[in-house]
Amino acid sequence: MTILLSVTGFDPSRWWQALHEAAPDRNIVVDPADAGNEPIDYAVVWKQPPGLLATLPDLKAIISLGAGVDHILADRELPQVPIVRIVADDLKERMSEYVVWRVLDHFRRGRAYRQQQSQKIWHERMQPAAREITVGIMGLGVLGIDAAAKLKVLGFDVVGWSRREKSVEGVRSFAGEAELSAFLGASDILVVLLPLTADTRGIVGKDLLSRMKRETPLGGPVLINAGRGGLQDEAAILDALDADLLMEASLDVFTVEPLPPESRLWSHPKVFVTPHAAALSDPDALAPIIMRQIAAHERGEALDNVVDRKTGY
Amino acid sequence: MTILLSVTGFDPSRWWQALHEAAPDRNIVVDPADAGNEPIDYAVVWKQPPGLLATLPDLKAIISLGAGVDHILADRELPQVPIVRIVADDLKERMSEYVVWRVLDHFRRGRAYRQQQSQKIWHERMQPAAREITVGIMGLGVLGIDAAAKLKVLGFDVVGWSRREKSVEGVRSFAGEAELSAFLGASDILVVLLPLTADTRGIVGKDLLSRMKRETPLGGPVLINAGRGGLQDEAAILDALDADLLMEASLDVFTVEPLPPESRLWSHPKVFVTPHAAALSDPDALAPIIMRQIAAHERGEALDNVVDRKTGY
Repeated sequence: MTILLSVTGFDPSRWWQALHEAAPDRNIVVDPADAGNEPIDYAVVWKQPPGLLATLPDLKAIISLGAGVDHILADRELPQVPIVRIVADDLKERMSEYVVWRVLDHFRRGRAYRQQQSQKIWHERMQPAAREITVGIMGLGVLGIDAAAKLKVLGFDVVGWSRREKSVEGVRSFAGEAELSAFLGASDILVVLLPLTADTRGIVGKDLLSRMKRETPLGGPVLINAGRGGLQDEAAILDALDADLLMEASLDVFTVEPLPPESRLWSHPKVFVTPHAAALSDPDALAPIIMRQIAAHERGEALDNVVDRKTGY
Repeated sequence: MTILLSVTGFDPSRWWQALHEAAPDRNIVVDPADAGNEPIDYAVVWKQPPGLLATLPDLKAIISLGAGVDHILADRELPQVPIVRIVADDLKERMSEYVVWRVLDHFRRGRAYRQQQSQKIWHERMQPAAREITVGIMGLGVLGIDAAAKLKVLGFDVVGWSRREKSVEGVRSFAGEAELSAFLGASDILVVLLPLTADTRGIVGKDLLSRMKRETPLGGPVLINAGRGGLQDEAAILDALDADLLMEASLDVFTVEPLPPESRLWSHPKVFVTPHAAALSDPDALAPIIMRQIAAHERGEALDNVVDRKTGY
């Protein structure tokens, strides 16, 4: 039994090492040719080369190195085996750190205070209390629910939106297109944690941005996207910022990554850019979870967190 | 019965209005002369003019507009009546927002990412998990305990230090000078929330800074002071930053406020300055608490949160 580790865009050696340390008796290859005559039963992947997985006749499951699987589903020649996404406390906690950090930095007027400091201006800004601010979370999966709980501990009012109705304790939840306007009308700070699917592609565009709140206790609405770049229309975001429909934005993901130098997002004074770093997939934390999933599946147990190909998450 | 509202450094009108709205039947004056022949029973103060309170023969209690009372005790001619400090959820929650915000901004490398953005550099930094970072809180009063609990929810390891031994659930606590080195040796990020007293004046100085950790998962230790400026030696902090004994600092309080334009703290690239804005005393939130205290005392009930003049908090 051999495991294929197939990634593009970065060096797989740290992942290979971590997977190897999690289960030293396993044969892990980064190229199917290295498996020789051994069957490849599992593929652990991040943005695998299109068509590659279709060439593996013995494949039993495809496992994503991250919380999302859009990078897998982009492959049009995917074999009909289960696709599993990683659900790990480590990923979830890192994502919540990012969300709470960005919410607090906008809420506590980090940009204004950094600007004041650069001009040596001593001036206390009016500061609403957290309970006066509603954070709206788009996407009430494992990540959205954890971020919501942590924001509530800090005193924020939290509402949520998801494609299908969900019930999350302490979070007023909206569902579907029918309730999107009500959700946007309630949200002072919008946090996007949706999966990228055919339904959500480009959802943060001109239409959605035009339906956001005009007035908030902070002076205007804030956008935070830590989901996927494909969810957003970057020209529409820039227009909204320039037209003061959006007060500020924190973007961790972009339609093209790395974000090209010519993008105006890099230099826009109201935008905070991070390089898809909101929730680093830490090989040391995640490899043991992946190898345990594989071992359990071999013992005949069901795979956890199998993706529904129709919905894309 | 008349209440004196005595403040210096800012316009008292917002406070007067809020106190008036909290108890419209009370006579509230901002100058003792306005009381005419009426006795002044209570003084609600922020940095009252020295000697003023000693001229009020009927005074029953002095109530601070904030969590600290060092601004009251600085008056050498203080009458021997109880001094009360404000303990309010609103203040506590705002302070915890500031502490969590600053911890996250240092921890998630806000400065480095802002710098990268200004140069259009797409580069993901190594990011430890919150559980790998120990936040050390100096001062385990109401504010320190609340901040500790919220940092723990985000996954940080939290230790605490106080002058006298305290027991806080889930927080390894150190006490007194004897355990200060052990506490500093455990802390990757140091958060100062001490009251300013004769014992704590200048405590964040050369000696303490030289005993901080050399190596941390972030590359070096971080200092956050949201207590009082009098706790810190600013020259020693600048020296420690320049000598790389401190990686970064967030300072909300200063020995002289407003921070003078000639201070190097304004322009130091590793320092984040806010204008004593960590926990705004919101008149609308606090005035009802103050007026309820006064009403309860008049009914013969004991005052809450009376300060021990010997310890200064």
